[in-house]
Amino acid sequence: MATSTRSSKRQKTDGSTETDPTAGTGAEDSYRLIYWPGMPGRGEHIRLAFEATGTPYTDVSNATDEGVNAVLAQISDKNLGDETNPPPLAPPILQHGAVLLSQTPNILSYLGLRLGLVPDPSEDPAGLYHVNALTLTALDGLSNEPHDVHHPIASGAYYEEQKDEAKRKAADYRAVRLPKFLGYFERVLKGPASGGGQYLYGGKLTYADLVLFQTLDGVSFAFPRRVRRLRETGEYDAVWGLYERVKGLEKVSAYLASERRKPYSMGIYRHYPELDDEE
Amino acid sequence: MATSTRSSKRQKTDGSTETDPTAGTGAEDSYRLIYWPGMPGRGEHIRLAFEATGTPYTDVSNATDEGVNAVLAQISDKNLGDETNPPPLAPPILQHGAVLLSQTPNILSYLGLRLGLVPDPSEDPAGLYHVNALTLTALDGLSNEPHDVHHPIASGAYYEEQKDEAKRKAADYRAVRLPKFLGYFERVLKGPASGGGQYLYGGKLTYADLVLFQTLDGVSFAFPRRVRRLRETGEYDAVWGLYERVKGLEKVSAYLASERRKPYSMGIYRHYPELDDEE
Repeated sequence: MATSTRSSKRQKTDGSTETDPTAGTGAEDSYRLIYWPGMPGRGEHIRLAFEATGTPYTDVSNATDEGVNAVLAQISDKNLGDETNPPPLAPPILQHGAVLLSQTPNILSYLGLRLGLVPDPSEDPAGLYHVNALTLTALDGLSNEPHDVHHPIASGAYYEEQKDEAKRKAADYRAVRLPKFLGYFERVLKGPASGGGQYLYGGKLTYADLVLFQTLDGVSFAFPRRVRRLRETGEYDAVWGLYERVKGLEKVSAYLASERRKPYSMGIYRHYPELDDEE
Repeated sequence: MATSTRSSKRQKTDGSTETDPTAGTGAEDSYRLIYWPGMPGRGEHIRLAFEATGTPYTDVSNATDEGVNAVLAQISDKNLGDETNPPPLAPPILQHGAVLLSQTPNILSYLGLRLGLVPDPSEDPAGLYHVNALTLTALDGLSNEPHDVHHPIASGAYYEEQKDEAKRKAADYRAVRLPKFLGYFERVLKGPASGGGQYLYGGKLTYADLVLFQTLDGVSFAFPRRVRRLRETGEYDAVWGLYERVKGLEKVSAYLASERRKPYSMGIYRHYPELDDEE
C-alpha cells in the first residue's frame, strides 16, 4: 500500500455542488497518479489539480517503492486492461478505486467536478465543456507543439538526430505559433465569458487556469529570451497576469516551493539555447 | 435561418437514459456544425456522430448561404465571444441553442450523452471517460500526427517548403507510429473492457468507434500502400474488422454514399505518393 505524499485532509476549495452523476462514486477512494518519475511532464497538470485544491493523492513513481515499474506495467504491450478499464497507451494514468483513466485532458475532466475546478453544472450546464475546450487548446499549442519543436521528425529518436529540423520548427514556433496562442488566450481573458479577466472562464479558478499556468511556465523555461521579449511588448498582459495570479495562490505557491515540484529536464519542455531567440 | 440538411426526425439509437445533468438542456434546439466547407477534416467526426444516430443537423458552410463566412466570423481576431461562450480558436464549432463549443473531442463529449454514443452513466459511471480517452488517443496518433507528417515544420507554410522534412517524418510514421497506434487499438479490442472485440468499449457503438473508423479511413487514403501491407500482416484484424463493421452500419453506409460526405483533398489527410511506401 502506497503512502500518501500529503498529510492534509481532502477539502473542497469552494461551495460548489457535485451534481455529476458519476461524482461521489468512490469518493472514499484515494487518488493515485501514475507517471514518469522525476519530471513535471504531462503529469504536472494532474498534480496541480490536486495541489491547488489541497486534495490528498499519491504520486506513485515519485513517492512509493513501485517507482517507474508502476508506469511500465501499465503501458506494457502485454497489458490488455481489465473488465472495466481499457489498457492505457501512455501516462499520465489516474487510479481512483477501480477506475483507471489515461489522457491528460480526460483525467482533468474526471477530476474537475470532483475537486470543484469547473463551474457548478446546475448553474452553468455548458461550463465544464468550455473549461475542457480551453484546456485542450492550451495543451495543443503550449504543450504538444513545444514538444514537437525539439522532436519534429521522430518522437522516438534523439534530438541530435533532428536538430536542423528542430531549428527550423523553433523559428516558426517563436515567430508564429507562440504569439498566436498567447494572443488567443489574451482574447479569451478580454472576452465577457471570462467574467472579468482574472481567470479564463466564469470569474473563478478552473483547471483550465492551472493548465495555462503550467504550460506558460514550461514555455518560459524552454524559450526564456523569446518569452521575455513577448512579455515586454505588453500585448499579453492579461495572460501573464493570470500566470502570476495562479502562481501566487497559497496552495500553488507552497507546492512550487516544495520538493514535490520536480525540475524541468528532458521532458516536454527543454531548454536548448539554439532553439530560442538570439541574445 | 439555415435549412436543415436532414429531413429525418431525431431519434435515439438505443435505449440509453440521458442522466447527464446538462443533457436535456436545450434539447429542443437544433444542432449547427460550423466547419470549413468542402472537406471532411476534423468536422467529419462531428458529422459522423449525427449521421450514425440519425440526428438532424445543419452543416452550415456546406448547406447554407453563410458558407465559409460562418467560420471566419467565429475565428476572427476581433471575436471576443459573448457572455457565456469564450471565443473559439479554430473550427469545428458546434452551435446548440445559446451554447457554442469548439475542439473536436470536446464537442463529441458534449454530444455523446445526448446522442446515446456513450454508456449510460447510471450503469457505468466511468464509461464516458474511457470513450473520451480512446477518442483522444485515436485523434493524437491517427489524425494529428498524419497532419504533421505533411507539415512537420510549419502548419502555416506550404508542403513544398517542408517536403524533405516531410519525407523523413513520413518514414518514421509508416515504420513506427502507425503500427504503434494500430497495435494499441488491436490490444484494446482484445481486452475484456471491449466487451467482445466488436467495438472499442462495452460491446456497443460509441463515438470512439466512429472516430477510429474515420481516422483509419483517412490514413488509408493518405498511405494506401503502407496500409495495404499492414492489413496483410493480419496483426490488426480486430482493428480492420471494426473499420468494416462501422462502415457497414446502415446509417453510416448511407451517409458515405451521399453527397454530404466530401472527398479528401488538401486537409488533414493528403495523398502524396512520395510520403507513402514504395510500390
